[in-house]
Amino acid sequence: MADLTLYIGNKNYSSWSMRPWIALTQAGIVFDEVLIPLGNPGEHRAKLIEPHSPSGKVPALRHGDLVVWESLAICEYAAELFPDAHLWPEDRAARAIARAVSAEMASSFQAMRDALTMNIRRRVPDYQVPPAALPNVRRVQEIWTTCRARFGQGGPFLFGQFSIADAMYAPVVTRFETYTVPVDGVVRAYMDAVQALPSMQAWTAAARAESHVIETYDAITDARP
Amino acid sequence: MADLTLYIGNKNYSSWSMRPWIALTQAGIVFDEVLIPLGNPGEHRAKLIEPHSPSGKVPALRHGDLVVWESLAICEYAAELFPDAHLWPEDRAARAIARAVSAEMASSFQAMRDALTMNIRRRVPDYQVPPAALPNVRRVQEIWTTCRARFGQGGPFLFGQFSIADAMYAPVVTRFETYTVPVDGVVRAYMDAVQALPSMQAWTAAARAESHVIETYDAITDARP
Repeated sequence: MADLTLYIGNKNYSSWSMRPWIALTQAGIVFDEVLIPLGNPGEHRAKLIEPHSPSGKVPALRHGDLVVWESLAICEYAAELFPDAHLWPEDRAARAIARAVSAEMASSFQAMRDALTMNIRRRVPDYQVPPAALPNVRRVQEIWTTCRARFGQGGPFLFGQFSIADAMYAPVVTRFETYTVPVDGVVRAYMDAVQALPSMQAWTAAARAESHVIETYDAITDARP
Repeated sequence: MADLTLYIGNKNYSSWSMRPWIALTQAGIVFDEVLIPLGNPGEHRAKLIEPHSPSGKVPALRHGDLVVWESLAICEYAAELFPDAHLWPEDRAARAIARAVSAEMASSFQAMRDALTMNIRRRVPDYQVPPAALPNVRRVQEIWTTCRARFGQGGPFLFGQFSIADAMYAPVVTRFETYTVPVDGVVRAYMDAVQALPSMQAWTAAARAESHVIETYDAITDARP
């Protein structure tokens, strides 16, 4: 049994769970995982999650007596606990921007999150991004393009080497695939780099192997995978 | 002219601006401020803010060539730049929880934020919290109560001494005053401690002195201050 336990939701649907899972896995941190299926009626779900997470939401990371929740806070904790994993960029200015884009992901893009819910095993070829979500989709691509141009010299990720910022945007990469969002070459190359990560391959394979279906997410369009 | 410039919205309304302003001021950090009035038509507002903030939103902190945005990321940057200000708790576990409650504030409580918009100079004595916002209001009080009980020994704040977590919840303190949310003694004492901070006194006095009115926020109920 590992010293750390990460409580997560379904790998196909739970974008917030995916973020710290990818960050920890990519950093080589050993942890146990406990999967709590989402999509149950409210009370049932609360009863399942609340013993493990003070906010009643996944993800949560247990480390001995300490429980840390919120994707970004879990990633910050992992970065402190394992400094050799370099989960944030070394350069102070780059780190500040990495935290800004990570916080923007955590606090923003509600229209995109509602319309393009994470659903890794689906493909919706003719999906039209709703007008309300278009500014979000554009802003995400602007963030990726700007970070790649300004900080991306040392590797294929937003800040060159893999960082928490990539983990925070990893679910959006899968959303752009699921809903076949048109992208340019720079964005395409970044998405390919993220999807080639061993942690991403492992998570998405597990997501595809899940049989649990949440109807409201799969009913977003008539198209079926 | 200071080395740092913080771009903010109206002090009466802009809760996201208030957070880093309180954190920086409380830490004794010297900065210039530039206030961009909110509530203008979309395009006008975008034109005013975009030159100063990549996300098109306030707040943003300029430090030489570097612009950092998102309240939490600005606070993290200030904590790194001025370690002697101890903007995060010293203890690693306390710091992890401080980051978790700060991230939860940044990512959650949408129903409460929509219904109980920050409006420092108002008082709505008969306000009924809408049912959708009640779980948020309860959860915030649970966070405050839990942090006070677990980490509050060294002072009147969530983690004893003032920290970024208090800055993140400072606008909610003013909301509970504006909308006269019933609170117990522990929560009352915490709210009083926050409001007694010199930085809070300065911000709220400036908010009351503003004449700019955003009708949609002031029309939430018929009551008037």
